[in-house]
Amino acid sequence: MNKGLLIVLSGPSGAGKGTICKAFLKENKDFILSVSATTRKPREGEIDGVNYFFITKEDFEKKIQNDEFLEYASVYGSYYGTPKSFVIENLNKGKDVILEIDIQGALQIKERYPEGVFIFIVPPSMKELRNRIEKRGTETEEAINERFSSAFNELNFASKYDYVVVNDEVNKAVKRIEAIVMAEKCKIERQKEVLNKVKEV
Amino acid sequence: MNKGLLIVLSGPSGAGKGTICKAFLKENKDFILSVSATTRKPREGEIDGVNYFFITKEDFEKKIQNDEFLEYASVYGSYYGTPKSFVIENLNKGKDVILEIDIQGALQIKERYPEGVFIFIVPPSMKELRNRIEKRGTETEEAINERFSSAFNELNFASKYDYVVVNDEVNKAVKRIEAIVMAEKCKIERQKEVLNKVKEV
Repeated sequence: MNKGLLIVLSGPSGAGKGTICKAFLKENKDFILSVSATTRKPREGEIDGVNYFFITKEDFEKKIQNDEFLEYASVYGSYYGTPKSFVIENLNKGKDVILEIDIQGALQIKERYPEGVFIFIVPPSMKELRNRIEKRGTETEEAINERFSSAFNELNFASKYDYVVVNDEVNKAVKRIEAIVMAEKCKIERQKEVLNKVKEV
Repeated sequence: MNKGLLIVLSGPSGAGKGTICKAFLKENKDFILSVSATTRKPREGEIDGVNYFFITKEDFEKKIQNDEFLEYASVYGSYYGTPKSFVIENLNKGKDVILEIDIQGALQIKERYPEGVFIFIVPPSMKELRNRIEKRGTETEEAINERFSSAFNELNFASKYDYVVVNDEVNKAVKRIEAIVMAEKCKIERQKEVLNKVKEV
């Protein structure tokens, strides 16, 4: 059996990777969403094992030492991480897995699982990104400027990825990711078994 | 402007690459079909520059010496070849070009234009290939056996290609090639211009 594909959606903040990931999963029910582990308290309605694996700080740090994460980070005093076993077990069962993550996380995953397919989501233009941030209306001018220049600098990481998908429209971006999945499955290195089957007379 | 894509459809004889190429072009009108040159006489209804570029033996051999072919071969005393200029000029104009060719030809093209996208078309099974050959009913048992064992050996060249597309149904095979085209266009090395455009504030 062929291993599943690991699709990593990443890109500058504000590019819309979360929206695209959700829309992709809606159309591709056979894909498994990687569930992160965190040490922060569950919010109302959040379910352990669905939204996150909620674990203690001690457990998290033990898992770090045992190299049980594909990536992890500390944000505002809480840990967040991608448990390796959940992802790898699904891939080994032939299931395709998708996850959405910031650039630092994606680069950590690439070091540990270079066979993944790394997709960089970008807004159609930085002007559009600025509009999107401003439209939310929840942030100060200073916060907007900071977010904007950080997103701008993050564009330079695109070269570390396999593909760039422009998020001009969510549906179009999802179609491009579906095409990437289909093409990756046709790649020669993933077709050895198919070829052996063809050869059976 | 980005260069166009060169899509090379190839594979063992009887896999159905000709049918797939025609069906693909019907759905993808923006693609240009590479027109081959030949020294054989035009058949009734064949138009110079559409079906083939019909040229003399002397011209063909001069072009060989001037390295004007992406590939060429001699078949039953006539030359057939893919003129480099036609393909390269279209690619440089940003047009996508497709061509369908046997394995020897594809490997010659790969040497001269490795940036091409090389797709290996295979039948769903060799049993199915044998059925297809036999159903034509035009060949002797010996000819069928020869065609079959030659196709079988040709499967070993798959590893020289980028992608394998199974021709289980023509429509499905065309969809896979369309996905490969879309994914190739999202590849990071073809997105540098897009990224520069995104950066414009």
